[in-house]
Amino acid sequence: MERSNMKKQEHKIVVAVDESEESMYALSWCLRNLLSPNTKNTLVLLYVKPPPSVYSSFDAAGHIFSNNVIETLEKYGSELVNSVMTRAEAVYRNFETKVTVEKVVGCGDAKDVICGTVEKLRADMLVMGSHGYGFIMRALLGSVSDYCAKHVKCPVVIVKHPGEK
Amino acid sequence: MERSNMKKQEHKIVVAVDESEESMYALSWCLRNLLSPNTKNTLVLLYVKPPPSVYSSFDAAGHIFSNNVIETLEKYGSELVNSVMTRAEAVYRNFETKVTVEKVVGCGDAKDVICGTVEKLRADMLVMGSHGYGFIMRALLGSVSDYCAKHVKCPVVIVKHPGEK
Repeated sequence: MERSNMKKQEHKIVVAVDESEESMYALSWCLRNLLSPNTKNTLVLLYVKPPPSVYSSFDAAGHIFSNNVIETLEKYGSELVNSVMTRAEAVYRNFETKVTVEKVVGCGDAKDVICGTVEKLRADMLVMGSHGYGFIMRALLGSVSDYCAKHVKCPVVIVKHPGEK
Repeated sequence: MERSNMKKQEHKIVVAVDESEESMYALSWCLRNLLSPNTKNTLVLLYVKPPPSVYSSFDAAGHIFSNNVIETLEKYGSELVNSVMTRAEAVYRNFETKVTVEKVVGCGDAKDVICGTVEKLRADMLVMGSHGYGFIMRALLGSVSDYCAKHVKCPVVIVKHPGEK
C-alpha cells in the first residue's frame, strides 16, 4: 500500500478472450494475480467477432468465399461467442475472489475494437494472450497483442500459455 | 483465491529499470498493482548496461567515438547505474508493502540480458516500460519491450507513462 493516497479504489480490467486455450489461461492468470482484495474489481470480458467484410472478402489462402460459406461462418461466429463466454464463465467461477464480471461483444477489426473499448471504458489494465485474436483474424491481420501494447494508454499484460514456445 | 491449490506462494517479479521516467512509473505501478498481500513477493530490479562494443562502435548518427568519448561514456554508464538504482529505491521506499528487493546489473544486449535473466531466475512476471531500454540502446536496437513480450515465457506487463501518447 502506498503511503500517499494514489491508489484507485475501483479497478477495471479488460480481458480479451477468444477461442484459444491461451486466452482462457490469460483469464485465469489474471484472476490469480491481478485482483487486489482491497479494491472493487470489475472484469470486462471482451470478445471481438470478425467484421462481415472479412467473410465476404478473401480467406488467408486467397480463395473467395461463396454465400453459403459466408452464412455458415456467420452462424459459426455467433456460436463461438457463446462457446467462448461459457468457457470464460467456467474459468472465473472456479475462483472465490469477489469480482464483478461484464461481458462485451464487439465486431470489427480486433485491434481497433480492443483499443477502442479499453479507451471508452477507461480501463486500468488490458490482459490478453500473446497470439493475436482468433485464427481468422490472426491469419489476416497478424499479432493483435503487439498492436495493442503499442496503442492503448493503460498497462498491457501479455500472457503466454505455458505450453507455448 | 482459487479453490484448487494452484496459487504459488512465492512470487518473483523482474522490473526492468533504466534512466527513463517511464521505467520508474512502471516500478511504482507494479508496487501498487501487482503485489499480492498473501504471497512472498520478491522484486528484482534489473538494469542493463550497454556492452562496451556499443561504445567502441558507431553512435546512432553514424559517428565514430574517440577513446576519450568511450571512457567518458563508460564512466557515465556506471554513474547511471547508481543514479537509476537510487531513484528506484526512492520509489519503493514510498510504499508500505512488504517486499524483498534484489538488484541485478547486467551488461550486454538489453533484449538478451532481460530475457536471459527472467529465464534464469524463473521469474513469474516481467514488468517494463514500453519505450525500450535507455536512449543509446533504443537508438541502436529498437523496442526492447516488443522483443521481450515475444520471447520470455512468463507474462509480460508493458506499462506506458500516462504522459506518453
